[in-house]
Amino acid sequence: MPCGAAVTDGALFVLVDLLGTAAFSISGAAAATERRLDLFGAYAVAFMTACGGGMVRDLCLGSLPPVGISDWRYVACSAAASTVTIAAASSIERLRHPVMFFDALGLGFFAVVGAQKALAHGASPGAAIVLGTVTAVGGGVIRDVLLNRIPAILERELYAMAAIAAASLRVVAEVNGWTIGQTPWLAAGVGVVIRLLAVRHSWRLPLVGRDERDPAR
Amino acid sequence: MPCGAAVTDGALFVLVDLLGTAAFSISGAAAATERRLDLFGAYAVAFMTACGGGMVRDLCLGSLPPVGISDWRYVACSAAASTVTIAAASSIERLRHPVMFFDALGLGFFAVVGAQKALAHGASPGAAIVLGTVTAVGGGVIRDVLLNRIPAILERELYAMAAIAAASLRVVAEVNGWTIGQTPWLAAGVGVVIRLLAVRHSWRLPLVGRDERDPAR
Amino acid sequence: MPCGAAVTDGALFVLVDLLGTAAFSISGAAAATERRLDLFGAYAVAFMTACGGGMVRDLCLGSLPPVGISDWRYVACSAAASTVTIAAASSIERLRHPVMFFDALGLGFFAVVGAQKALAHGASPGAAIVLGTVTAVGGGVIRDVLLNRIPAILERELYAMAAIAAASLRVVAEVNGWTIGQTPWLAAGVGVVIRLLAVRHSWRLPLVGRDERDPAR
Repeated sequence: MPCGAAVTDGALFVLVDLLGTAAFSISGAAAATERRLDLFGAYAVAFMTACGGGMVRDLCLGSLPPVGISDWRYVACSAAASTVTIAAASSIERLRHPVMFFDALGLGFFAVVGAQKALAHGASPGAAIVLGTVTAVGGGVIRDVLLNRIPAILERELYAMAAIAAASLRVVAEVNGWTIGQTPWLAAGVGVVIRLLAVRHSWRLPLVGRDERDPAR
Repeated sequence: MPCGAAVTDGALFVLVDLLGTAAFSISGAAAATERRLDLFGAYAVAFMTACGGGMVRDLCLGSLPPVGISDWRYVACSAAASTVTIAAASSIERLRHPVMFFDALGLGFFAVVGAQKALAHGASPGAAIVLGTVTAVGGGVIRDVLLNRIPAILERELYAMAAIAAASLRVVAEVNGWTIGQTPWLAAGVGVVIRLLAVRHSWRLPLVGRDERDPAR
Repeated sequence: MPCGAAVTDGALFVLVDLLGTAAFSISGAAAATERRLDLFGAYAVAFMTACGGGMVRDLCLGSLPPVGISDWRYVACSAAASTVTIAAASSIERLRHPVMFFDALGLGFFAVVGAQKALAHGASPGAAIVLGTVTAVGGGVIRDVLLNRIPAILERELYAMAAIAAASLRVVAEVNGWTIGQTPWLAAGVGVVIRLLAVRHSWRLPLVGRDERDPAR
């Protein structure tokens, strides 16, 4: 099963899942390039960025072995995306916009797929929202921990909130029986739109604590 | 089941478990405030500080999904404690003593509850001591890894040793059949007292390695 | 079962497994000594360096509780090796060569044992290679994350590649039915030799990204 762990098996679904895997891998490989890891490090960080969130979800659900290591298509997809990223390192800055777009796509989509898989394994609605969010954002946290920096989702533009919105919508729809075919796509779309708007308008949550440089200190 | 995974279900037990969850959440939220994370970051770090240790224990025991994501009371408790901490950020320094007290309470209590749950799942006495300790200290390790610093328990005043003492006492009592009702409280109390004394008297384990600034170098 | 989770139970096998555990523990304790952790920190980091990879593998396989916390021999072995390392901190530099040798031994051996255990639990060949590699290198990654630095395997001399080679050979042999008694030893030996040659000749994978100090920039 895919990194996002397809519950339905439509070709379009698999395609979007692979696009999300590729986008997350590019983000991981680009970060590895900035830190000048070696080739193994770049592929490993890219793979964990793409599949780490789904693997943590699967450990929590007891769905073993976790996806990512049990389906070669996702390893292959991650490796291909990483290879392109490493080869194109000098022009990666120019590719920032498309990567950001696919990353947002992966974010909304993984959140919905993760929540669906959790529900299918009998998780409570609350747990399904948490695990959907973990599916979407967990890989990025692992990437940042491996690269020895504070995870971006703890302090940057709205990211986790977009995943929480998508996962919550999907779970609310399921709980209320609104299980028409378009529900997953709609929920994922809401997450994607929130993320894209947040990037464009630099939306971020308030920071906690006191700004030491605050003139009114 | 609670973050500390109540094996008995007395109201007092639940109350102490929630107090421990709140204290650990305050410690996580306060650390997030110092690092100026955003709101999501503060709640997420606080929650992982409070429930991360119990979740790792549950992954090791195969008790899935891990507590923390399956009982809303503990999410709610962590969120409430975090909200107060964030709102009171400017006076958090004054609250250092009560927080330290409840943190010690959570430490002793979580160690005992974690050890009990491990025994109830058929773990060996040695594994139960390890998993009790992980329940008590794992969340703090996750907090420090997320905040990109060396975990405090690896170098500060006695902390893990207090948890090891509490978990060991509980396991020794179980193995020897001293299972009267007060045993868990007594074991937890020993851990709490060790921790409080360590803080008051700055007890710490010897450091390893050579002090480069040592005049006798 | 041992940290490397013996599938066969020969005395030689156990001996090599314990040697690998000791070598990895020494590497962890030595790193703790450099960072001047306290005694608990040194033992904890040494233990996670030796057994962390096998524990992650067991979580992925659902083989619970994970080895390392269920066999006292490996806790004892790690503690003994750590004690010697801490006591001999001042001469640890002189011991660098033997430690490097046993570390390479542990690397090749753990990769093979991890792959074998994964196959025995019904993992696919690809998953077995990944989990064998995780068994061998996972502990070092955990050590470096705890010590707040970028994992060495992401940027130094060939390390993960040696584990991948050993695990792959073992899996290919199994898939093709070459299951004569010497196969595991041979596969482990190849990993050990690759690692020792890499250290001696400073073999490393190319780095990714652009060298900012490149004169041709």
